[in-house]
Amino acid sequence: MPTQEALSEIILSTFHGRSTLPQHDLRPQPAGVLCPDITFFQSQDTPVRLAALATPILIHLPAPTFFIDIDGVLYGGSAPVAEGPSVIEFLRQQGSGFLLVTNTTRMSQQEIQQKLTGLGYRVQDDEIYPVSLAAVDYINTRYGAARCFMIGDASLETLFAERGHTVVRTEEPVAAVIMGLTLWPHFGEIDIARRLVNAGAEPIALHADPTWPDEGVTRIGLGSMVAALEVVISRPITLIGKPQPHFFTAALERAGFVRENTIMIGDSLNSDIAGATAVGLKSLLVRTGNSAAEPLPTSCDWELPSIAELPGWYQTQFGS
Amino acid sequence: MPTQEALSEIILSTFHGRSTLPQHDLRPQPAGVLCPDITFFQSQDTPVRLAALATPILIHLPAPTFFIDIDGVLYGGSAPVAEGPSVIEFLRQQGSGFLLVTNTTRMSQQEIQQKLTGLGYRVQDDEIYPVSLAAVDYINTRYGAARCFMIGDASLETLFAERGHTVVRTEEPVAAVIMGLTLWPHFGEIDIARRLVNAGAEPIALHADPTWPDEGVTRIGLGSMVAALEVVISRPITLIGKPQPHFFTAALERAGFVRENTIMIGDSLNSDIAGATAVGLKSLLVRTGNSAAEPLPTSCDWELPSIAELPGWYQTQFGS
Repeated sequence: MPTQEALSEIILSTFHGRSTLPQHDLRPQPAGVLCPDITFFQSQDTPVRLAALATPILIHLPAPTFFIDIDGVLYGGSAPVAEGPSVIEFLRQQGSGFLLVTNTTRMSQQEIQQKLTGLGYRVQDDEIYPVSLAAVDYINTRYGAARCFMIGDASLETLFAERGHTVVRTEEPVAAVIMGLTLWPHFGEIDIARRLVNAGAEPIALHADPTWPDEGVTRIGLGSMVAALEVVISRPITLIGKPQPHFFTAALERAGFVRENTIMIGDSLNSDIAGATAVGLKSLLVRTGNSAAEPLPTSCDWELPSIAELPGWYQTQFGS
Repeated sequence: MPTQEALSEIILSTFHGRSTLPQHDLRPQPAGVLCPDITFFQSQDTPVRLAALATPILIHLPAPTFFIDIDGVLYGGSAPVAEGPSVIEFLRQQGSGFLLVTNTTRMSQQEIQQKLTGLGYRVQDDEIYPVSLAAVDYINTRYGAARCFMIGDASLETLFAERGHTVVRTEEPVAAVIMGLTLWPHFGEIDIARRLVNAGAEPIALHADPTWPDEGVTRIGLGSMVAALEVVISRPITLIGKPQPHFFTAALERAGFVRENTIMIGDSLNSDIAGATAVGLKSLLVRTGNSAAEPLPTSCDWELPSIAELPGWYQTQFGS
């Protein structure tokens, strides 16, 4: 049997190369040291490698895995995107793993799960990775149990408290200033944050999205609050969520997905598509949210009018 | 008699050149067409021109005129700078005109005058030129009587209303969004401002100072609110106050001062010194406010520990 590393090699090579190379275009290549019972084939025209085993075994071609943004992809405001719930079921049937990744800071993992359930989606808590969890992971790694000044909603405060951190809303020494979206902070909170940062606290914002859709109204987002703080402090603000590279890396780790086999589905060219591309993920833009009318950048691999079209696209790309 | 233009030439040449050139270093130059009864002298070593009249008349050398910032120069918090009131009296005795120029948006001309009077200063309303008046001038010129959405204090609203404008605090069609400092707006106001700007209103901020001194505490300033709006709109925000060139130009017009004969006294390297230098004013930094510890830039002509030192400096520079 091949080693685990060699199997990964087979899988990835096959994933990249399937259905693109005619058989007669292949010639044998040295297998290298990893797994002597594998024969590699090198295409004459492309650098893609395929592999076959000296002792035949059944290789299951891997289904692609997906990161899926929620707001603007699975729902808009209080309504689900048409066919959204059945697309999730389709992915389950295909054996394609998925993780819902979101910059939402105003709902907990459980609240998001409940909202999705109410809209007809069948998903589990642990299939959702919100930026608030990534922020907790960041603080844990860097400070352990920490005292934090927070600008953000109650659910964010509860999450931090549950994970062993102390959340304060008054001006006192803290390790970090955490900024999540909230409706609306006043500038007195930014003023306090400025002095805490100048006294040594790390400024952390869950993301810097300029706007967000609130029940049909486009509102200023956390990006506006980040700008308000950034202009009055002398150090950069740590950003946690999409499009930051470490958010995608943390999501890969949490889901156990292979980077080269994972496709980001999102509605925002900046947060979703550019962010995913920057860390080597493939990307698919849907036109049901933030970037509905913007031209498709060359870095984006695919686009669809809506996630409703995903099954047909999936069949074309990967077979059934 | 020389024409007015020629007299200005004499005055300016003399102002720039006085006490720096030995008599024997001068040679006659053609007078040009402006005023044939004036003889100009050209220094051999410098490009400075001096002038003398063919028919001798008494030329009064002009006293320099001053723009003087208020907060951080004449007072800090609730206390006057030591000797400040007597310095104003000294300037009156010298016949040196002055105009108090300030980015303060939270007090009217009358309230500033009353505060200064309470601190021992003897100044008139029309010796004060606050940025709020400059904003009214700007709106008048551009829109006439206009409807404005305002983020700012009651005194700013009153000023605009007195000058014939309609101030609204709710989301309705307006010609302009006016942002003055206020303690504290909430981001919902920025959210409304964003939508009004996207609908066509001109975004106007009285200034973008990042911080301001509030009774001994340094607080975030209008610059933080400007940044919060700027990041979510697609057009630049019109800035009115220091260091904008048109503020200084408007102040010169209002005071009737000659640009080359005017010195800006301020405590802020950015608002006062850089702003004045950019429009050809001379500048003098005092170390009693915002830029107390920053190095003196080459663009600044003079510095003093405090405006209290101004009389001695004045005698040295201009005689009595």
